[in-house]
Amino acid sequence: MKDDNCIFCRLANGDIPTRTIYEDDKFRVILDNGPATRGHALILPKEHYANIYEIPEDVAADAMVLAKKMAVMMTKKLGAEGFNLVQNNGAAAGQTVLHFHLHLIPRYENDGQNILWKPTQPSDAELDETLKVLTGD
Amino acid sequence: MKDDNCIFCRLANGDIPTRTIYEDDKFRVILDNGPATRGHALILPKEHYANIYEIPEDVAADAMVLAKKMAVMMTKKLGAEGFNLVQNNGAAAGQTVLHFHLHLIPRYENDGQNILWKPTQPSDAELDETLKVLTGD
Repeated sequence: MKDDNCIFCRLANGDIPTRTIYEDDKFRVILDNGPATRGHALILPKEHYANIYEIPEDVAADAMVLAKKMAVMMTKKLGAEGFNLVQNNGAAAGQTVLHFHLHLIPRYENDGQNILWKPTQPSDAELDETLKVLTGD
Repeated sequence: MKDDNCIFCRLANGDIPTRTIYEDDKFRVILDNGPATRGHALILPKEHYANIYEIPEDVAADAMVLAKKMAVMMTKKLGAEGFNLVQNNGAAAGQTVLHFHLHLIPRYENDGQNILWKPTQPSDAELDETLKVLTGD
């Protein structure tokens, strides 16, 4: 259900003007006003779900199919040389608006962005311990 | 189809040992050996698709549903405080192995990673021009 106190609900449902590149009954795709790169856009479900934990499986699936279609279209029209999909959950992960959204980020050679992490080098014992935590009951 | 020259095909299909946290007929989820954080894992389709452009819609949809399930399970078992999904396409976007994969990155307060971008500040005219490129034929 739409939450009138949520800015992304209001954007997704057309209560606030946006630069919309796609819309259907479930989603709106809008340009980000503070983009990483030219064409950076957000897939917003029209219903309110705070994050990946709350979103129903069918909506998650539809969002990813839409992301693929947008990646194809945007890469072609913008002449992009790469493409990142990023979806953040929780303040610790950089989520600033608590409404599920999927970042569509066209990439270009030397675009000045670095969206990667610094790899760490855990020992085999540490990796085995993590595996045990994740596969144990 | 599996490509025997692709390292991720070989990992996904069990030809090379991995730390597997989940497997079904379509996907294998493995721990990353050079993780961003504790529990960083990769969803690998068993069939070979280079990237988001090549992956069929049904496989993309299934990957996202699996990502949701993994996010719920991993966050709980690891005691994570956030979660990033990242999917890179092309060298310009940081893709190093040309087999579609979805990064599952549990996040923790002060984990030392910054997977975000630097926002840019295009003018309204620049944003309008990008909108026109993306919505024109």
